[in-house]
Amino acid sequence: MKYSELASNMKPSELGLLLALADMPDFYNFSSGYPAEELFPLKEMEEVDRTILRKEGKLAVQYGSSAGYVPLREKIAQRMKDKFQVSCCANDILITSGSQQGLSLLGQVFLDKDDVVLMESPTYLGAINAFQINSPKFVEVPTDENGIIPEALERILQTTDRVKMMYVIPNFQNPAGVTWSLERRKAFMEIINKYDFPVLEDDPYGELRYSGTVQPALKSLDTKGNIVYLGSFSKILMPGLRVGWMVANPEILGKVNLLRQAVDLQSSSFAQRQVSYYMDMFDLDAHVEDIKALYRKRRDLLCEAVRKYFPVGVSTTYPDGGIFVWVTLPEGMDAKEISVRALDQKVAYVPGVAFYPNGGNGNHMRLNFSTMKEERIESGIKLLGEILKAELK
Amino acid sequence: MKYSELASNMKPSELGLLLALADMPDFYNFSSGYPAEELFPLKEMEEVDRTILRKEGKLAVQYGSSAGYVPLREKIAQRMKDKFQVSCCANDILITSGSQQGLSLLGQVFLDKDDVVLMESPTYLGAINAFQINSPKFVEVPTDENGIIPEALERILQTTDRVKMMYVIPNFQNPAGVTWSLERRKAFMEIINKYDFPVLEDDPYGELRYSGTVQPALKSLDTKGNIVYLGSFSKILMPGLRVGWMVANPEILGKVNLLRQAVDLQSSSFAQRQVSYYMDMFDLDAHVEDIKALYRKRRDLLCEAVRKYFPVGVSTTYPDGGIFVWVTLPEGMDAKEISVRALDQKVAYVPGVAFYPNGGNGNHMRLNFSTMKEERIESGIKLLGEILKAELK
Repeated sequence: MKYSELASNMKPSELGLLLALADMPDFYNFSSGYPAEELFPLKEMEEVDRTILRKEGKLAVQYGSSAGYVPLREKIAQRMKDKFQVSCCANDILITSGSQQGLSLLGQVFLDKDDVVLMESPTYLGAINAFQINSPKFVEVPTDENGIIPEALERILQTTDRVKMMYVIPNFQNPAGVTWSLERRKAFMEIINKYDFPVLEDDPYGELRYSGTVQPALKSLDTKGNIVYLGSFSKILMPGLRVGWMVANPEILGKVNLLRQAVDLQSSSFAQRQVSYYMDMFDLDAHVEDIKALYRKRRDLLCEAVRKYFPVGVSTTYPDGGIFVWVTLPEGMDAKEISVRALDQKVAYVPGVAFYPNGGNGNHMRLNFSTMKEERIESGIKLLGEILKAELK
Repeated sequence: MKYSELASNMKPSELGLLLALADMPDFYNFSSGYPAEELFPLKEMEEVDRTILRKEGKLAVQYGSSAGYVPLREKIAQRMKDKFQVSCCANDILITSGSQQGLSLLGQVFLDKDDVVLMESPTYLGAINAFQINSPKFVEVPTDENGIIPEALERILQTTDRVKMMYVIPNFQNPAGVTWSLERRKAFMEIINKYDFPVLEDDPYGELRYSGTVQPALKSLDTKGNIVYLGSFSKILMPGLRVGWMVANPEILGKVNLLRQAVDLQSSSFAQRQVSYYMDMFDLDAHVEDIKALYRKRRDLLCEAVRKYFPVGVSTTYPDGGIFVWVTLPEGMDAKEISVRALDQKVAYVPGVAFYPNGGNGNHMRLNFSTMKEERIESGIKLLGEILKAELK
């Protein structure tokens, strides 16, 4: 049987297969990207589900609009204003089945084969996978502990043809945990405003800040309509409902909406109402505060343990939010090789090479702190520290 | 802003905009593709939802597998055996967000630009849209009242290069309402078995038969693994949950699953359990019988009214199942033009031209009988008959 060029080139990731192991309960699993499930508001959802069926009846399970359930889009518009100073209305918002779908739709709407997409270096693995569908060239823009480096971006833009799209995560980046400073955001927007390509601002962790000052969303600084903001309920409510959203100018949204109809028609009518009714009936802000309190504690425990147990020569980021810490081993060390030996000792993390679209950079690892219980974080990091010490010898 | 070639070519359908009108309650709406919402088991869903949360807890709203919830896949495998004599297991099944998503995923997995996809003529509009993402060439295979014409298919295959995929709806076709006879099915499989391209068997209405003899699924006659079967709960349970499935050989399913992870990760964990628990807790077969009883009545009413009120020279199909009747006007009449005038009189149908990937064939119309209340079917058809008589003068 003959597959498309795309399908012929797709291979299961060996990493994914290995890390499947890490789900076992006796593993120290720092490889996760899941939210803490002990905080899911299950009792509340019973009330939510019953109310949906009684108030909306058949509409809750019938086909609906491909742009999404209007009351949910209205509440998201209000939240964009309250939390991120982004002024928009329901018509500027399209509901997606998680922001992963937003990424794949936007990739299809903007990228042809061999077009260039700019990414932070490192960047989110799921975005690389989503854009890969259109076989673009990935050009990596250097970053440091304050985010993207404007001078580097400017140089790349001056010397690169066919730049069609850029993808960034300005808050608590996955994987590096970095947040862009205000100065960087302003400098970035000044550069971007000289061009006409769309910038995807992916912000799944934006509300999960545990320290430092809130920074404005790029979308709130956007005067030209080039920023497409991607939001998600996966990390602030529940990921299994698959409800995310996109804020964009009407022209872009029109294209995305047409493609959406061809791709899968719409998100689950019921799932969209689950989020919407939860927001009406309960206090999402209070729920986010509970998540933040738990994650802050886990971040502090992990970062403290890292300082205590990791060998000299290994550096880590201290994220102000989100769910990831980024570890840099001495140049030349191979975090992927080490991960195989670590799995033997029941410690799992994601080797950093996965987050570089063009490979290389073998000496990094991503550690997650959202899912592991407090009492296991210290002993897990202690064990990982010992493994690293042995490797450094 | 510059869009991809795909997005540059996408345009909102004028038809869609027009037909949006038809949702008003005073319209005779024969243009729908929705199931009858008065049969949705809403009371039962209250119990289902509560049981899911109590029994599964956090798993019901956490991330899950991209292939889908295993107990649901097991039940689908059993149902494929019971209803369609297809022998398969959970591992041969992948859950999709409606079968529309199955179509778009398979298009991406098999089609490159300018590859040929074979379609019945006419065929399902949503499939044309889904495959269009990959810019293939559509070659239409002639059909008659017994389904696809084997001799025509054979001739096309002998003279056509780059055939990469075929798409068919053997039961109660959308739009033509035609069901393939047993002889045609066997002749089709004999031809197909000489080739290596996949055949997508789309079967959303397979269980909705009101008369005639049950025919075997192509998948049940498949000895080579070239048939990919697409099923859906949209027409036998509820469409708004967005739960469908695909049965295919492991190699194809592996490719689809990898693409799925890039596209949107998975279907809603909760929605999949809503279907699965409904099937455990209630009698889906009995529910399907209720649907069939209602639709049989509506089909008979519509077909009788058509015989009574449509002018001589207009022919219609009498479908053994599904939700559509196909109308053929005298050659040279333009059902699209007439539809604009019909909308003025508050009668809506879908002009047949939409179902021909290469256009033409302006003298057809698709009538739906699943959504309109019995008492309005006759008066709606009577009015449409008068409109057609006036046009024929």
